[in-house]
Amino acid sequence: MIKVVIIGSGNVAHHLIKAFTKSNTIEIIQVLARQKESISHLLDSNKITDNTNDLVEADLYIIAVSDNAIAEVSSQLNFQNKLVVHTSGSIAMMDLDSKNRKGVFYPLQTFSKNKEVDFHQIPIGIETQNDDDHQLLETIAKSISDKVFNINSQQRKGLHVAAVFVNNFVNYLYKIGNDICVENNIPFDILKPLIQETASKIESLSPNDAQTGPAKRNDTQTINTHLNFLSDENQKEIYKLLTKSIIDNGKKL
Amino acid sequence: MIKVVIIGSGNVAHHLIKAFTKSNTIEIIQVLARQKESISHLLDSNKITDNTNDLVEADLYIIAVSDNAIAEVSSQLNFQNKLVVHTSGSIAMMDLDSKNRKGVFYPLQTFSKNKEVDFHQIPIGIETQNDDDHQLLETIAKSISDKVFNINSQQRKGLHVAAVFVNNFVNYLYKIGNDICVENNIPFDILKPLIQETASKIESLSPNDAQTGPAKRNDTQTINTHLNFLSDENQKEIYKLLTKSIIDNGKKL
Repeated sequence: MIKVVIIGSGNVAHHLIKAFTKSNTIEIIQVLARQKESISHLLDSNKITDNTNDLVEADLYIIAVSDNAIAEVSSQLNFQNKLVVHTSGSIAMMDLDSKNRKGVFYPLQTFSKNKEVDFHQIPIGIETQNDDDHQLLETIAKSISDKVFNINSQQRKGLHVAAVFVNNFVNYLYKIGNDICVENNIPFDILKPLIQETASKIESLSPNDAQTGPAKRNDTQTINTHLNFLSDENQKEIYKLLTKSIIDNGKKL
Repeated sequence: MIKVVIIGSGNVAHHLIKAFTKSNTIEIIQVLARQKESISHLLDSNKITDNTNDLVEADLYIIAVSDNAIAEVSSQLNFQNKLVVHTSGSIAMMDLDSKNRKGVFYPLQTFSKNKEVDFHQIPIGIETQNDDDHQLLETIAKSISDKVFNINSQQRKGLHVAAVFVNNFVNYLYKIGNDICVENNIPFDILKPLIQETASKIESLSPNDAQTGPAKRNDTQTINTHLNFLSDENQKEIYKLLTKSIIDNGKKL
């Protein structure tokens, strides 16, 4: 069994522990959590520590903490020349402390504690400093995911920005749709098939080919009707900017 | 069999013809199309006409043309006191010509000609002037959809605006994600599981609870890294506005 230690107890750590627990080739031998209770339902209490100095020897240490804590956490480890990776989209591999061998293990997904995910469908982008570590990290990633790929720190930054657009911002547009429904006494459920189809459509069409709607048609009459309908200034501003962008994009084609 | 005539040959007409053709209780007896060839693969040529004056008698006439042509098309019909409905999200029922009985038959979905849809999963919002027509329109809608609901013209306008946010604008954010991938030599396919999960998440969580990411965490360091990374001014402007909106929304909660 390959021995893995996870450092952190947030959403990513939570889902990684669950995924590795199902694997036959990887053993989570320890988790470092500031609040031991937060993960006590996921593994034996003797495998949980809140003290960095108590960390045991392992083949891989996965730092799954918030971005701004990664460098500090990696510098506090009191061992050397081990493979230590982080799970962040936006932090460079080189930001890890140099006393250990560096790598990145980036699962590209949105994690919420109370929403199960199928890890096998989650792409994991990996990066290491040397080939042996690459092989080990790939083996570990493939034990939980069918979609392992190589990506360097610069590309990973781009991928993370793209992910913010297609996940964080998209979800916020769902929220606006929800708000408009609530204001007009319409059940949000009515929009859900449209939301699913919008996501499903790009499996077979490019987003450019899938684009429909008043902005795409440059239908100024409908656009003005919509702007008159919206009373929330923030919604109006977003409507205007995205409509203008879609119209300008149409002109470029 | 209930006899239906469809007026129009665009995306909505196209998918309605297909859906009704599968139904056992509805018969499409005629389609009015300016370009007869555009739908000749969907039904017998003797059922297609390009002349308004050749329209035959039916139980329901569905006008599925572009929004700005609906009023005119309805005024050109040379018969009276028939049930005539349109399929638009943003046009009021009362905009139809008053010589016929008015109604609305609004399928809430994004239609592209070369993408099949399962009509049974598509919500259809209906509105009529009187109860008998309501019953007929409901029967017809239920013959192709499992999700028929009542909605008045004002609510429908709200629903259409909400649909623009969760479909047109969401798809445009997919396009930006795609563009960023292309610029950084990353296959767009890597983002697809995230896109599907983002849509799937709101089946069990509200969009507010599903929100994650740097804006939600007010993580200014990552936000600035992303803004520095983006070189396209339009992408930058959209990033800034949506990030600000998510942060402001967090403060309101």
